[in-house]
Amino acid sequence: MIGRLNHVGVATPSIEASARMYREMLGATSITEKRALPEQGVWVAFVDLPNSQIELIEPLGEDSPLKGFLEKNPKGGQHHVCFEVPDIIAARDEMRAKGATVLGNGEPRIGAHGVPVIFLHPKDMGGVLVELMQTPAEPH
Amino acid sequence: MIGRLNHVGVATPSIEASARMYREMLGATSITEKRALPEQGVWVAFVDLPNSQIELIEPLGEDSPLKGFLEKNPKGGQHHVCFEVPDIIAARDEMRAKGATVLGNGEPRIGAHGVPVIFLHPKDMGGVLVELMQTPAEPH
Repeated sequence: MIGRLNHVGVATPSIEASARMYREMLGATSITEKRALPEQGVWVAFVDLPNSQIELIEPLGEDSPLKGFLEKNPKGGQHHVCFEVPDIIAARDEMRAKGATVLGNGEPRIGAHGVPVIFLHPKDMGGVLVELMQTPAEPH
Repeated sequence: MIGRLNHVGVATPSIEASARMYREMLGATSITEKRALPEQGVWVAFVDLPNSQIELIEPLGEDSPLKGFLEKNPKGGQHHVCFEVPDIIAARDEMRAKGATVLGNGEPRIGAHGVPVIFLHPKDMGGVLVELMQTPAEPH
């Protein structure tokens, strides 16, 4: 079922500071502008790599789902991995049938790439928060 | 400097159990055999994705560097990200000059892909343990 590793989600208290680190220390050359995803409670920017992306996410608003993570990890850290799937509804139903726990109400939401996504609880995924994203029409 | 996202390192108490989860729940179709890397204190296996890999790592021996991680995260979890660089010595020297902390004695070690690698302390990397790997001659 899973296809490409679309991105690794990295939580940060400051996208600006993280973008500077990726650019100046690690020499990343393409980093997107920061933008708001209010319905997900995050700011987001992408570090483009030749084959994948790092998704930098920063809390947006008081109810951001990242708040707890950053309280435990004040410097930030690896938050989730995102795999592409051909059909998000088929993937959701298959994951549920196999005993995975789909977060939220189970309805896919539109993610940062403009395609529907779901998240799977880490407890069934080897401790890893897994995002499944319907394969975008264009890479990334 | 950084090129491809070579892999995401995922620590697990059992590579067999994790491989089963990736195969049976997430539908991964290509997972390498588990093998020992005694000098790094880990067992390793790779989940092949079309553009990258998940590196499953399990403690090997009493002094495994994964023991502390798994005590804090008994189910496992995301452990590191690995970026390819063209020249590991040049990358190490550049990272040091920019204030990053190279783990161990700073001498690159041969990693699971047969090429030299170094690790950078998370405190300078936005809370993420970063592995740099000299680009393998063949993909993966």
